[in-house]
Amino acid sequence: MAYPKLSLLAGQDRRLRSGHPWIYSNELKMDAAAKALEPGTPVKVADVAGKAMAVAQFNPHSLIAARVLSRNQNATIDARFLERRLQRALRLRERLFDHPYYRLVHAEADGLPGLVIDRFDRTLVLQANSAGMDRLTPELLEAVDRVVAADHIILKNDSTAREREGLKLSVDVIKGESKGAIELVENEFAFFADPVGGQKTGWYFDQRDNRAFAAKLAKGERVLDLFSYGGGFGITALMAGAKEALAIDRSEGALELAKMAAARNGVDGKLTCLREEGFSALDRLAKEKQRFGLVIADPPSYVKSKRDLKAGLKGYRKLARTSAALVREEGCLMVASCSHNVPLDSFRDEVRKGISDAGRGGRLLCQTGASADHPSHPLLPESAYLKCLFYMLD
Amino acid sequence: MAYPKLSLLAGQDRRLRSGHPWIYSNELKMDAAAKALEPGTPVKVADVAGKAMAVAQFNPHSLIAARVLSRNQNATIDARFLERRLQRALRLRERLFDHPYYRLVHAEADGLPGLVIDRFDRTLVLQANSAGMDRLTPELLEAVDRVVAADHIILKNDSTAREREGLKLSVDVIKGESKGAIELVENEFAFFADPVGGQKTGWYFDQRDNRAFAAKLAKGERVLDLFSYGGGFGITALMAGAKEALAIDRSEGALELAKMAAARNGVDGKLTCLREEGFSALDRLAKEKQRFGLVIADPPSYVKSKRDLKAGLKGYRKLARTSAALVREEGCLMVASCSHNVPLDSFRDEVRKGISDAGRGGRLLCQTGASADHPSHPLLPESAYLKCLFYMLD
Repeated sequence: MAYPKLSLLAGQDRRLRSGHPWIYSNELKMDAAAKALEPGTPVKVADVAGKAMAVAQFNPHSLIAARVLSRNQNATIDARFLERRLQRALRLRERLFDHPYYRLVHAEADGLPGLVIDRFDRTLVLQANSAGMDRLTPELLEAVDRVVAADHIILKNDSTAREREGLKLSVDVIKGESKGAIELVENEFAFFADPVGGQKTGWYFDQRDNRAFAAKLAKGERVLDLFSYGGGFGITALMAGAKEALAIDRSEGALELAKMAAARNGVDGKLTCLREEGFSALDRLAKEKQRFGLVIADPPSYVKSKRDLKAGLKGYRKLARTSAALVREEGCLMVASCSHNVPLDSFRDEVRKGISDAGRGGRLLCQTGASADHPSHPLLPESAYLKCLFYMLD
Repeated sequence: MAYPKLSLLAGQDRRLRSGHPWIYSNELKMDAAAKALEPGTPVKVADVAGKAMAVAQFNPHSLIAARVLSRNQNATIDARFLERRLQRALRLRERLFDHPYYRLVHAEADGLPGLVIDRFDRTLVLQANSAGMDRLTPELLEAVDRVVAADHIILKNDSTAREREGLKLSVDVIKGESKGAIELVENEFAFFADPVGGQKTGWYFDQRDNRAFAAKLAKGERVLDLFSYGGGFGITALMAGAKEALAIDRSEGALELAKMAAARNGVDGKLTCLREEGFSALDRLAKEKQRFGLVIADPPSYVKSKRDLKAGLKGYRKLARTSAALVREEGCLMVASCSHNVPLDSFRDEVRKGISDAGRGGRLLCQTGASADHPSHPLLPESAYLKCLFYMLD
């Protein structure tokens, strides 16, 4: 295709040659012609000698100026192209899972930069987080239609990432009727997600394996599921034989999802849902001298930008300290961070210090990340955003 | 107890106060009395003001001069003390596993520095890797006897770590009769281990969860299980529906274990065992243009000391390159390192480069470590020695 050609500056081709999927604005020759291109325009990116190296989506207003779609400089970015990428993403998920509930597309790692698609069987939730993907939405919908038979498609275009790309925020049901909570299957249990009104794209599939592992530690125990959203950790624990679970979330809507799931799985008698802020709940439970055999502390991101790192790390230390204080002797604690701006080593250090601040010792059972339907691009280690630490305390 | 008292040097108490379980020889006042102590002697460690801080096991000839057993300065290190630690370790494993086959004690993380115990139901394999634990062996056997009903106990004291502690190497069957391969259950399948004649303590329990995850990727695929030992990865994959598996190991004894396990699980028709060196096999299979849907490359440690790091990293890059070349389009690759001297970031970089050297792209599905019966001490990140990277290649 005759896409506009943009040139890398002298000496700025190393990142692209190494396989990195991004080109920063200071690596490209930003002349008037480039600046005049519509955000999201497909372009050919050439080295300083004029040799085309890749086809990318360009946004003159973003720090990440270009996102690579193909190393084949003759690639045509159309519905067929997108369909092939979607098919490959689907084949991986079908290898991994018995039920059609998963993250179907995880952006750069699936060769579709900026695009997220979560699948709830015949309901798809799409999020286009780059100008390029936003512009490609019509072709994308055509491609999606060929790959998955969907009754409902929701464009959940309300992420802060879109603001950085200069895109407007909106949530649109573009196929089927708007509906509320929908049922999903995870680790063989039923849960409810709200793709339109809920958090993120409706469900945190990334914690699937961590929920299963946590449940192994929960048999016969009282479980505290802090920042519970739809009750994923607490209910999975109950299904594995936990004695009771306390789900705490600041959102009434989230707790409604948890209650529905508990009832659907027949464990509503064992789940208590409380609307409360995380740290307030931790303080209250400590005053009441409550103790749990398993505490799950999986908060929203504390470090949304690198500026917040120091404060965020303090937050994780406090979270670890106040959570550890509620863990019974030989009980377990999971602390998670979903902030891609937090390096694993720093997070692990702060959590260790927090546990120590609580006067507790322990051992790290494992450190895990997101489930495999959230792969990461090898050159974007920050795309492995989720970090979970499982401890058994003394 | 009236254990000899050793003093930390001025300003050298920070590590101990932070919760670290080791004291290096340059942090202690090594006077004539200290140097005269028998290796493995229990001591009290005091700060420069003379205040006792911990009870530790001392070895005047080791760089790690003292290993902390208790922060209670009045602790008595006897069979009762060891029994409590063993009971705690056992309770964790019983929470985690349905079958009595696991690493029962993982050294510092279980509060028993230098000690490893693997359990095969009523067979226990012990390894004392410090002078302190070696000296405590009689009390340890008494404690073990109270905690686990064992018919067979093997002291597998042949590790290189013992050499660093100035201990002699030996393998002794101290309870029951010496026998060859014994059966174990892992992920609900049967395997065979050879605790006396086999590698390490007989079985690599640390890969249990990674074998289960790899098997999910193996359905309908040809699997290459390189450095197979007893066939853990290959046979688990076959049980999950892999079409066929090729197990390669340099040890005939290891392959015998794999063959027995394949027969026991009824998949011997699908497992081929070949005695061959890893890199020779990779070269040969490449020449034969063989392709696999899943390649497992789980070699012995390439970096046994920090001196070997550069060469070892080159080795991992080569391993990734030659393994990736055998992976079919959209097939999966796992590369593992069990070297605690290799930082995760360096390992991940080299594997990424190796895959790229092979002209392949891909996505990192997950990075994992050892199963939770191999916990790590929070202040010994190097005790999280196992690093596994799972890729799906384009």
